Amino acid sequence: MANSKYAYVREFELPDPLLPGTFMLFRLDGHSFHRFSDKHGFTKPNDVRALQLMDHAAKDVMTEYPDIVLAFGESDEFSFLLRKSTTLYNRRESKIVSTLTSLFTSCYVFHWAKYFPDLPLQYPPSFDGRIVLYPSDKHIRDYFAWRQADTHINNLYNTTFWALVQQGGQTTTEAHATLRGTYSKEKHEILFSRFGINYNQLDARFRKGSVLFREEITPDLEKPSPPGFTETQTSDDAKESLSTTAEKGLESEEPINEVSQKLEAEEAKIAKKAKKKGKLPQTKIELVHCDIIKDEFWNARPAILGE
Amino acid sequence: MANSKYAYVREFELPDPLLPGTFMLFRLDGHSFHRFSDKHGFTKPNDVRALQLMDHAAKDVMTEYPDIVLAFGESDEFSFLLRKSTTLYNRRESKIVSTLTSLFTSCYVFHWAKYFPDLPLQYPPSFDGRIVLYPSDKHIRDYFAWRQADTHINNLYNTTFWALVQQGGQTTTEAHATLRGTYSKEKHEILFSRFGINYNQLDARFRKGSVLFREEITPDLEKPSPPGFTETQTSDDAKESLSTTAEKGLESEEPINEVSQKLEAEEAKIAKKAKKKGKLPQTKIELVHCDIIKDEFWNARPAILGE
Amino acid sequence: MANSKYAYVREFELPDPLLPGTFMLFRLDGHSFHRFSDKHGFTKPNDVRALQLMDHAAKDVMTEYPDIVLAFGESDEFSFLLRKSTTLYNRRESKIVSTLTSLFTSCYVFHWAKYFPDLPLQYPPSFDGRIVLYPSDKHIRDYFAWRQADTHINNLYNTTFWALVQQGGQTTTEAHATLRGTYSKEKHEILFSRFGINYNQLDARFRKGSVLFREEITPDLEKPSPPGFTETQTSDDAKESLSTTAEKGLESEEPINEVSQKLEAEEAKIAKKAKKKGKLPQTKIELVHCDIIKDEFWNARPAILGE
Amino acid sequence: MANSKYAYVREFELPDPLLPGTFMLFRLDGHSFHRFSDKHGFTKPNDVRALQLMDHAAKDVMTEYPDIVLAFGESDEFSFLLRKSTTLYNRRESKIVSTLTSLFTSCYVFHWAKYFPDLPLQYPPSFDGRIVLYPSDKHIRDYFAWRQADTHINNLYNTTFWALVQQGGQTTTEAHATLRGTYSKEKHEILFSRFGINYNQLDARFRKGSVLFREEITPDLEKPSPPGFTETQTSDDAKESLSTTAEKGLESEEPINEVSQKLEAEEAKIAKKAKKKGKLPQTKIELVHCDIIKDEFWNARPAILGE
Repeated sequence: MANSKYAYVREFELPDPLLPGTFMLFRLDGHSFHRFSDKHGFTKPNDVRALQLMDHAAKDVMTEYPDIVLAFGESDEFSFLLRKSTTLYNRRESKIVSTLTSLFTSCYVFHWAKYFPDLPLQYPPSFDGRIVLYPSDKHIRDYFAWRQADTHINNLYNTTFWALVQQGGQTTTEAHATLRGTYSKEKHEILFSRFGINYNQLDARFRKGSVLFREEITPDLEKPSPPGFTETQTSDDAKESLSTTAEKGLESEEPINEVSQKLEAEEAKIAKKAKKKGKLPQTKIELVHCDIIKDEFWNARPAILGE
Repeated sequence: MANSKYAYVREFELPDPLLPGTFMLFRLDGHSFHRFSDKHGFTKPNDVRALQLMDHAAKDVMTEYPDIVLAFGESDEFSFLLRKSTTLYNRRESKIVSTLTSLFTSCYVFHWAKYFPDLPLQYPPSFDGRIVLYPSDKHIRDYFAWRQADTHINNLYNTTFWALVQQGGQTTTEAHATLRGTYSKEKHEILFSRFGINYNQLDARFRKGSVLFREEITPDLEKPSPPGFTETQTSDDAKESLSTTAEKGLESEEPINEVSQKLEAEEAKIAKKAKKKGKLPQTKIELVHCDIIKDEFWNARPAILGE
Repeated sequence: MANSKYAYVREFELPDPLLPGTFMLFRLDGHSFHRFSDKHGFTKPNDVRALQLMDHAAKDVMTEYPDIVLAFGESDEFSFLLRKSTTLYNRRESKIVSTLTSLFTSCYVFHWAKYFPDLPLQYPPSFDGRIVLYPSDKHIRDYFAWRQADTHINNLYNTTFWALVQQGGQTTTEAHATLRGTYSKEKHEILFSRFGINYNQLDARFRKGSVLFREEITPDLEKPSPPGFTETQTSDDAKESLSTTAEKGLESEEPINEVSQKLEAEEAKIAKKAKKKGKLPQTKIELVHCDIIKDEFWNARPAILGE
Repeated sequence: MANSKYAYVREFELPDPLLPGTFMLFRLDGHSFHRFSDKHGFTKPNDVRALQLMDHAAKDVMTEYPDIVLAFGESDEFSFLLRKSTTLYNRRESKIVSTLTSLFTSCYVFHWAKYFPDLPLQYPPSFDGRIVLYPSDKHIRDYFAWRQADTHINNLYNTTFWALVQQGGQTTTEAHATLRGTYSKEKHEILFSRFGINYNQLDARFRKGSVLFREEITPDLEKPSPPGFTETQTSDDAKESLSTTAEKGLESEEPINEVSQKLEAEEAKIAKKAKKKGKLPQTKIELVHCDIIKDEFWNARPAILGE
């Protein structure tokens, strides 16, 4: 039963390297998430737990893959930017697309119970992913602008739509009819005049989406344990930190805030350990909900697009 | 904040259709599963729970995607054959690769607790996937022969290796040295003479791997609820059945055998419902551990390679 | 001025191998040949010299590339079938597409004066080419049926159209109007009743296109020098024969028929030389204008699709 | 004999668009030109007629395709740069590669007799072509530096080698042995001390290769008919000018210099005509043999890399 006579079938495996010197933009989307959110009773128009779970999975992916320098999430999709010079998996397309989609999915299911402690996952959700190559900085800026503008447009529509339904008593058909052809300004007006909602004061997470990026840790900044949803690591520690975090996470049944504190303590320990080694620049992954269309964000972080 | 000025970035999304009229062979592999199995204390040389979990995930994927007509699994890898004429996702490579890898991963994590009720998952595992195209029946036969021959070679080696270590008291270095350059026959001999193990009587699952295929249900065969790890469905019911199964699965904390019985009952119900509709030929997914190198398996199931 | 610091640019050259085990169908088309035929006053609806020149160029390409087993030409296009198992240029797409297109073009310009002795080429014509992969015999049969059916449809239309214009005195606009919506049968009727033309008795070259294939030479058949447009060679001699033929051709200013005789004599010599070596089966390239839609042609030549 | 039942074979034609926003570098090479130059007795180490013929073919290709902004040739190869924003043939790879290779080949054969009036072409030569994508200006600069450094290295070697053989009476084996392991400086020394050749005073065409680019024509510069190998056109006139030039060329049997003068007169007429239309900026294609590794060439022509 020698294997060698069949091994020729490997010759059908064709190479699929992605063009060097270009940014890889990896985007994933939930598969049939309309149904998934219905089955799990997600809050309309935004379910903060579901969004936090997405962010958590995205952060785990970034932690595992240091060549991801930026990520942006909204609803059931997340975009990841890999640096132009990355040689991850020799830039093999299927390998990268499948591995990143798989890890994100795994983290999503793995962390589910932390964000929905009372609601068991009803069935295994899935995502699809793809890589798009962009040659220049401008394309990357425009890509993320495209996604964040999309976030705004969708969220303004959905917020107004569900206000009309949930507070205004309209049917969904009526609400769609009310909004047909309206401009942004008119939706703001409906929200404010009918429901007393100042759109611009809603949670920035809903209006701006989630932005994850790496920040170098300078010794001074490090002493006070970093606030919020951040993680400190060197790339050497990436693998370790992911699994350690995971272990801790699994054992706990605490509410989300306490989980967060525990994660932070964990991260501080990792940061400390990494610092001792002192080899690589220490970075932490920051989660913010800010504008990434204008120049400010990018000018303050030249490392994202630079080499 | 009009979206339209940025939408040009979509033009960088290039088409990636796979050649029509060819079989798609989708294979996925565990990412760093050496470490994963160490961390979770998998039994050497084979952990039956881990293999059953792989089979379960593979079966869920087949259930969801009726165009998958055959699957073969060993260790931490699984191969799926899609029929030549499939138009799944318009044969877009990234879409198919990422979605199938994602769903398998999701099922693996989702069902973990059923197979490892006492061992929480330590961190989120991931898989990578790829599609290889094969033009002819012969290539497909040789592909699966290649994988099953590989199963045999690896399992014979590993079985002998771990016998030398676990029962023979050798270190792993010594065991490798003992086996260096040995032929198949000599490994059989070591197993039998030193450890009283008749290799050919070991669990076929370990020696042959797992073979999943669809079998049409004829009315007569259907009455006695189908035994073992099978599922009856029409393609219309694919989606429904997956999530229903999943829901049931989650609630239960029973040992594996009872879970299996419950699954069967579930499947019988689905089969019944499908039969009432009576439109599509009803199929169930069978799990066996038989030879797929010789002609017998294929001759008995012409539908696998046929259109 | 060391070269090495720039050599990294080679890393951007990505591999482009074509799937093994599939037929390659290489098709080329004249670029702007409407204008080209106008500028050179090609006879309407068919210019036999231009078609013979196409055939000659195609035959030269087949002579140079023994893995081409069949070619079909009509108007300003030619299709070439490469055997499934070909490893020509390691199946690199750009290499094959560009080289075959280039050689065909070169032969077309090179042989121009033989077919248009009184009409100098007005400007350099060009062709574009592409490769399409087909997995099975049936696809290849259907591909050639598609092209030959196209030949028939176009030629029947054009023959009727130009009869209306040239013999019937219609303007081109009127002739298009006359033919709008007519079926095949009606065109036959117009040709016959108005112009006394029995379509089925027109030159088969126009109605069926040009079919080029290799035929093995058996010793008995070889003695009487092969009639018509054929060439005998072994693949070893391919390169030699092309250039020798070319040299002879260039020197001559004889009318086409004498050129043909000279070519045959040349070929007979090559065949003889090849026979002495006696290694490879000797083949000659035959040009016919027969049906390739029905089974007969293919059944008589199993080697075309076989390995 | 309906065509429609076979037309499904078109579904096997897969799209092959090249990534937008990247420079296309199209390079072609002579196929078996060692043999070709032997058969045609090309002068060693450089045959000026053969190089001029290459330049002529390259210029014709640039004339026909206004999106080619720069070309560089040496020996039997030529590289063409297409602007980043080109949408030529919707950026379809096979279409572009095959068409450009075809046109170049066609021009090479077509113009052969002008450069080799006494030496008939012995057989049809061919070229192969490929496209490489480069994302940034720097890659393009380095690509052309790579080719020109290659020109220098090869020409210095070949010049010294053939001096040793032709003037020094060495066999080719001896000459290779003499040069083995020598540095650039030593080759210069051999040329100067043994053969009285100052390498740097040799024809720049041999040392630097051929550089073709477009230059805008300002009205003032235009009056005195442009000297040398240049052509003035607007893109509208591209097609016309190519064929007109070709017609003239064919008719003439004059020596090369007179052909050049005639071409210039032709071009001046075209320029005048184009000027009258006055729509597009008028450009002429310049041929120079200058350094393109340093910044000077590029700084003086920002349009080459700019949009």
